[in-house]
Amino acid sequence: MATSVVVGEEVMRNKQVIFKDYVSGFLKESDMQVINGTLKLKLPEGSNGIVVKNLYLSCDPYMRNRMTRVEGPSLFTSFTPSSPLTGFGVARVLDSGHPNFKKGDLIWGTTGWEEYSVITEVEGLFKIQHTDVPLSYYTGILGMPGLSAYVGFYEVCSPKKGEYVFISAASGAVGQLVGQFAKLMGCYVVGSAGSKEKVDLLKRKFGFDDAFNYKEETDLDAALKRYFPEGIDIYFENVGGKMLDAVLLNMKDHGRISVCGLISQYNLDQPEGVQNLMCLIYKRIHMKGFVVFDYYNIYPKFLDVMLPYIREGKIMYVEDIAEGLESGPAALVGLYSGRNVGKQVVLIARE
Amino acid sequence: MATSVVVGEEVMRNKQVIFKDYVSGFLKESDMQVINGTLKLKLPEGSNGIVVKNLYLSCDPYMRNRMTRVEGPSLFTSFTPSSPLTGFGVARVLDSGHPNFKKGDLIWGTTGWEEYSVITEVEGLFKIQHTDVPLSYYTGILGMPGLSAYVGFYEVCSPKKGEYVFISAASGAVGQLVGQFAKLMGCYVVGSAGSKEKVDLLKRKFGFDDAFNYKEETDLDAALKRYFPEGIDIYFENVGGKMLDAVLLNMKDHGRISVCGLISQYNLDQPEGVQNLMCLIYKRIHMKGFVVFDYYNIYPKFLDVMLPYIREGKIMYVEDIAEGLESGPAALVGLYSGRNVGKQVVLIARE
Repeated sequence: MATSVVVGEEVMRNKQVIFKDYVSGFLKESDMQVINGTLKLKLPEGSNGIVVKNLYLSCDPYMRNRMTRVEGPSLFTSFTPSSPLTGFGVARVLDSGHPNFKKGDLIWGTTGWEEYSVITEVEGLFKIQHTDVPLSYYTGILGMPGLSAYVGFYEVCSPKKGEYVFISAASGAVGQLVGQFAKLMGCYVVGSAGSKEKVDLLKRKFGFDDAFNYKEETDLDAALKRYFPEGIDIYFENVGGKMLDAVLLNMKDHGRISVCGLISQYNLDQPEGVQNLMCLIYKRIHMKGFVVFDYYNIYPKFLDVMLPYIREGKIMYVEDIAEGLESGPAALVGLYSGRNVGKQVVLIARE
Repeated sequence: MATSVVVGEEVMRNKQVIFKDYVSGFLKESDMQVINGTLKLKLPEGSNGIVVKNLYLSCDPYMRNRMTRVEGPSLFTSFTPSSPLTGFGVARVLDSGHPNFKKGDLIWGTTGWEEYSVITEVEGLFKIQHTDVPLSYYTGILGMPGLSAYVGFYEVCSPKKGEYVFISAASGAVGQLVGQFAKLMGCYVVGSAGSKEKVDLLKRKFGFDDAFNYKEETDLDAALKRYFPEGIDIYFENVGGKMLDAVLLNMKDHGRISVCGLISQYNLDQPEGVQNLMCLIYKRIHMKGFVVFDYYNIYPKFLDVMLPYIREGKIMYVEDIAEGLESGPAALVGLYSGRNVGKQVVLIARE
């Protein structure tokens, strides 16, 4: 279960969050276990991987999908039972056998839920060049969720000034950015979230035109009609299920739905059925799923846009940082009940 | 209930199919009634409508949707209880108060389910210029279903040579054409239909690479895996429900779904839920509904393509013609159980 790594003679303690076994139904903290392993911090001769010290780990909704046994080909492989979880994170390189990385580099990309990781698959890792912003941002606004928001909005939705935009899970890592992109473009933006605190955040901090707590609405269709009496041009889909059914009834003709995630469905053994697909025809709706990995090539362009936005305060960003690897399982579980306010990050080490 | 029209002194008998009242559940013949009305064949002074003698009427799946009371704005208005059904048809102009039409012209477009109709809304009517093909073709291959097949395949699916194409309700008015368009483009084409006779038609007459009877398949997912071991690039959706769920599991990455109709759902008071929408994300699927009316401007270009195809025998077309207005209700009901083989037409008069 535990790996063992030595720098010279040194064997380091390596605390890890272990994925116990495949999960069915709602994820529980007890599906994971924090253990003390050990690790050598030096790579074996001839390895072209890297050894890293993990600093921040990212809690992302898709991780639940990796906890189900996947039959057949899939976008994601399942986690390996009795091994550490993996996910996006920010880390410092301690040793490298790969020409693209050297000791001391900061990187973001897929790493382990543990204090130290040996990463043998370095494709998909990015070197962090700009450190005048918080490092944790590379798990969110400057990482996978930020790029998801960017491509899912600009590339998939073809937004135009003045359009009506609705975002579900709007205070999450992706949603809060999509809303601000839409405001910068001159759209009318409404978001849904699951608490009064989040609704306030959307309106006061992120500048949404309006927002509502979906948990307080007994009729989502009626709620959407209240906020969008003329209908929705663009729906940025993060949740699925009943919300999607209600949105379909409220789309405008030629509306666009960018399908980024369906978090309401990830803990269900059978997904809820979506009934109102007839609206796709009547309203000539264009619905498109996307995967951020397909757009990694535009990451440099994305950074060129985002860094000035952040430095100039044009885009705000809220994180919910859990301290210590031990808090990882609870932080991840909390994502699916919406306990987090803003992007959920786990801080492993400040260095 | 009956209209009354006179040519000079003459009052004509006008047999009509009356829509009795809003329908819930599966459409029955008894939801309609054939009556003998009367009609004057001369327009009143100052009218800018036209009077027509109906020759062929078209049975189209969407008509069931007009039999439900529609709340709020919709693509279609509901039929008016106690009035004749309306739908696409081919007719001869007997009198005209409109500059675009004169006595003797042949037209296709929306008319009444009756022997003679007064059409006050002439926008959306097309004058028939080519009569070297059967007139009934203007209810199908050269009418609304033909244009639907054309735009739904070429404009919505962006097909490429060698792609794998699946078509449901494949022997229907639209499906049979989409399959032949796809073959002409060099695609691999499989269709589903509801009887051995239709499956034979697909393979022998329309040149599909393969076809299957969905009613004989207990596991649609397994059936699709058998016919598309490498997956589906393009799905032309005519049915919805369980078939769509199975197709989603079998789409290739970056696949396209053109949503033309969902006939399996039209007689249900609550549509079936579609569960596998997560595939939209993983497989980066592009799903788009369309409405043929949006493409009426390309009808002349469409005719330029289709007429030579028909004359040269490059595209085959099968109709199922019911004789006489009295057979209309049964023909329309039969559409939803798949009783028709090919495009369902009702012949009113050979002139």
